[in-house]
Amino acid sequence: MSDTDAVLFANEVFYRAFVDRDFAAMDDLWSKTAPVTCLHPGWGPVFGRKQVMQTWKSIISHPDSPRIACHMAQAHLYGETASVVCFEEIDKRFLVATNIFVREDRLWKMVHHQSGPTAAQPEISPEEAPGPLN
Amino acid sequence: MSDTDAVLFANEVFYRAFVDRDFAAMDDLWSKTAPVTCLHPGWGPVFGRKQVMQTWKSIISHPDSPRIACHMAQAHLYGETASVVCFEEIDKRFLVATNIFVREDRLWKMVHHQSGPTAAQPEISPEEAPGPLN
Repeated sequence: MSDTDAVLFANEVFYRAFVDRDFAAMDDLWSKTAPVTCLHPGWGPVFGRKQVMQTWKSIISHPDSPRIACHMAQAHLYGETASVVCFEEIDKRFLVATNIFVREDRLWKMVHHQSGPTAAQPEISPEEAPGPLN
Repeated sequence: MSDTDAVLFANEVFYRAFVDRDFAAMDDLWSKTAPVTCLHPGWGPVFGRKQVMQTWKSIISHPDSPRIACHMAQAHLYGETASVVCFEEIDKRFLVATNIFVREDRLWKMVHHQSGPTAAQPEISPEEAPGPLN
């Protein structure tokens, strides 16, 4: 698996954990050693692993937790760090996101997420369309 | 100057170039070798140096180009890459931003910017308040 594929896989793990409301998977994905930050849409900045994971626990355990899909993810490598830019689809509205990962041993771990509204729309291939099980 | 200070300085160069409508400074700040991406507020993703710099030229050369100020910038280092999370103030409205920099030789060069709306407000120290010359 190339580095680009490995980063895109980590990005998929992030959205899969969100969709599945799998806090253990989400917790495992975020780095336990590097500085961690998060900018949820509309929120102020959240700094620190404990604080960021509390927000994720709150979001994915909420009964109205939004159903999310990721589209057109593109990874960019900067040595041992990588960014992914992608669209997010929530209730037929679109956002754009920046996700940052760092390589730890052989795994890419998440250290930052920002998501915010966009007037643009992704090109959605049939296999990317949210299915009934998503 | 510590790495953190050098990254925060590069972040200041970004906002100073924006405020001064200094395209040459903006062009010099963005990496000429690493992959470059940008998520302007409300826009779709912009990929590639040429395309990203065209957007900056368009934005800072526009007669109604917004007056911007940066508040509460915090840098996080990941080896040869760094992120800065900060508030942006435009016309008394606030946004939150992610700026990513990579070290090239002894300078930190910008490779990514995302900015989006927030309901939160920064604590603004007197010296950070936009002055009449900003």
